[in-house]
Amino acid sequence: MEKDLKDETVSQLPGGKTMNVEEIMLLHQGGKLETTLKHPIESMEDLAKVYTPGVAKVCQAIASDEDKAYELTTKKNTVAVISDGTAVLGLGDIGPRAAMPVMEGKAALFKQFADVDAVPICLDTKSTEEIIAIVKALAPTFGGINLEDISSPRCFEIERRLKEELDIPVFHDDQHGTAIVVLAGLLNALKVVDKDIRDVKIVVNGCGAAGISVAKMLLGAGAENLIGVDREGAINRQNVYDKPHWTEFAELSNPHLEQGSLSDCIKGADVFIGVSAPNVLKIEDVQSMAKDPIVFAMANPTPEIDPALAAPYVKVMATGRSDYPNQINNVLCFPGIFRGALDCGASDINDEMKLAVAEAIASAVDASELNEHFIIPNAFDKRVVECIRKAVAEAAIRTGVARKNLLTTVY
Amino acid sequence: MEKDLKDETVSQLPGGKTMNVEEIMLLHQGGKLETTLKHPIESMEDLAKVYTPGVAKVCQAIASDEDKAYELTTKKNTVAVISDGTAVLGLGDIGPRAAMPVMEGKAALFKQFADVDAVPICLDTKSTEEIIAIVKALAPTFGGINLEDISSPRCFEIERRLKEELDIPVFHDDQHGTAIVVLAGLLNALKVVDKDIRDVKIVVNGCGAAGISVAKMLLGAGAENLIGVDREGAINRQNVYDKPHWTEFAELSNPHLEQGSLSDCIKGADVFIGVSAPNVLKIEDVQSMAKDPIVFAMANPTPEIDPALAAPYVKVMATGRSDYPNQINNVLCFPGIFRGALDCGASDINDEMKLAVAEAIASAVDASELNEHFIIPNAFDKRVVECIRKAVAEAAIRTGVARKNLLTTVY
Repeated sequence: MEKDLKDETVSQLPGGKTMNVEEIMLLHQGGKLETTLKHPIESMEDLAKVYTPGVAKVCQAIASDEDKAYELTTKKNTVAVISDGTAVLGLGDIGPRAAMPVMEGKAALFKQFADVDAVPICLDTKSTEEIIAIVKALAPTFGGINLEDISSPRCFEIERRLKEELDIPVFHDDQHGTAIVVLAGLLNALKVVDKDIRDVKIVVNGCGAAGISVAKMLLGAGAENLIGVDREGAINRQNVYDKPHWTEFAELSNPHLEQGSLSDCIKGADVFIGVSAPNVLKIEDVQSMAKDPIVFAMANPTPEIDPALAAPYVKVMATGRSDYPNQINNVLCFPGIFRGALDCGASDINDEMKLAVAEAIASAVDASELNEHFIIPNAFDKRVVECIRKAVAEAAIRTGVARKNLLTTVY
Repeated sequence: MEKDLKDETVSQLPGGKTMNVEEIMLLHQGGKLETTLKHPIESMEDLAKVYTPGVAKVCQAIASDEDKAYELTTKKNTVAVISDGTAVLGLGDIGPRAAMPVMEGKAALFKQFADVDAVPICLDTKSTEEIIAIVKALAPTFGGINLEDISSPRCFEIERRLKEELDIPVFHDDQHGTAIVVLAGLLNALKVVDKDIRDVKIVVNGCGAAGISVAKMLLGAGAENLIGVDREGAINRQNVYDKPHWTEFAELSNPHLEQGSLSDCIKGADVFIGVSAPNVLKIEDVQSMAKDPIVFAMANPTPEIDPALAAPYVKVMATGRSDYPNQINNVLCFPGIFRGALDCGASDINDEMKLAVAEAIASAVDASELNEHFIIPNAFDKRVVECIRKAVAEAAIRTGVARKNLLTTVY
């Protein structure tokens, strides 16, 4: 361990606390996960039951009915957390080895929050076709695939193809996890300001994978006047884009064909959703918004606008940070969504299921608790996973992608 | 669960005990493994340490020195157990889903016997090139690769290429695990009959992946007069074979160019090693062997000759079964070999390491305990893993494939 780590700290904790980097390094020695046996093997008799010759009967049962893999193997409760290490946190393309601590952390959160067993897998390839082929080949082992930190635009194609070709749920959390939690927060923020999602003007700043996914989620939930803005200005169907996902998105959004920069588009907006870069939203921009503005500034660690600066002009403010109120945190979503999907043996996580999750997260904040500083439940609130689990499984059953009825599942 | 399972039993337990199939099925509900967290996540502070923002420091440390992955991630202690489900136990090509209970069982044995975390992975492809590409892409995540139940001859090419191209150990247990334990048993059996491996005539019956690997191991340990026999008769360098591994093997074996069937070749042999089929070795064959014959009849569940029938004519008898003395069981080998390889960060499991393991297993039977009914230690003897671990790491250090010195490792 380098000596200089001893005095280094990482901030961004509630109450302005800091973390010692050396302590973090020590915590990571040997990794964060281990395997345990459900039944110890302590005699030749145990051995003969979990391995040869007894195990042959279990293999034969699955060979004659493949769905029995959901009953008799770890597939029932196991998700692969798969990355190629190309878009890790704010660190970018750091490669598969350096990405492992994030994937292990994700797997740890799956277990802690929803008792899902997750296997972190970092792939030593950036080829879209190779990643698709590998994940397809790995699929029999798992009950679901969580794609993580794969750079745009490859992540779109990889997810689309895998969803089409596999019979287990595939979920790119960076896109949909963020989108679901943003929608959950926005549904509650709109209650606070007493506005309807169909009437409000929404500006989504930053049209990468997460931004587009957030925008589509809001459109799917009823938003009509939504404008996506990137460095080149408002996405507008009158323009020509070389990114196919922008062309597609332009068709769905910006009904009044607004043009110009963020400062132009933000005028009169009710909602700002930032999935972009530090300090790009100015005080003057916020001042030009409609009455009771809602600002979700989720660039991390430095938001699109400093919450302290924005406070006097904003009605509801959310960030990606745990040291401010209203943290938009994916951990609210992905453990419960896979918990529900695994419990009903879902073959997909479709749009209806995602919408149901957003509504479930929003409803986990009681009307009596709801206010501008509390639009999103706490990640450690155990009600959240249980709400999501039910919502996901019900939506899966309703839309015909469940293998079994949740009611028969002991959780 | 089918009703008829209730009365079905599986035998082959010590003392003639039987197992109830329904009990085995119940034991397999939901699989045999789960994930656990080394450090629980119970507060925002915990979350910030194992995940964002704290984890970024760990990622950066690995990004600037990839060897730190051995220190700061699960790579340090994790092996992938990889199969394509084409050659599972005696069941054959049952596919990746039905193979899972075996790979889970193998992973469970890794944990139980050597505290190695193992991830069972069954691949939905039989393409040699695809399997090689997939395992290469998976490699950053793991400290070692245990190939399992992949059919011959593909298993040779897959293992050879992966050993060449990866910087972590790759070990096809069906070949080398069996070979190592056979050699260990044979070294002790030869002590019992007071013969030298360089002088004895050995017949290996069955020249599939395991048979060839056993034969090569024995040749590497000093055997000079070894003849491989398959259904077509003795492998002989005067013949032409379409299997390249037979052509290669013919060059190494059968120095006196013996011809003919098993019954022809077994005449005057000191050792019979069967990795073949039930009941192919006749009483008359055993009677034609040299004085104090050694018979390893490892076809499972029915050996090459019934041990009760053979008893009057054989000096040392071993099988693959737990209900007879001298069980040749891979579980004696693979947990310890990977324990040692992981502990010293080995980049390979080479021939010197394998030979060292066989000698370590043999030496785990004290001279005072050694007799014709006890040539192989018990799988549950905790001394075995510790002996192997040291032998493997020492051989790895000696042959220059260790990343670190075992002495610095706390186990």
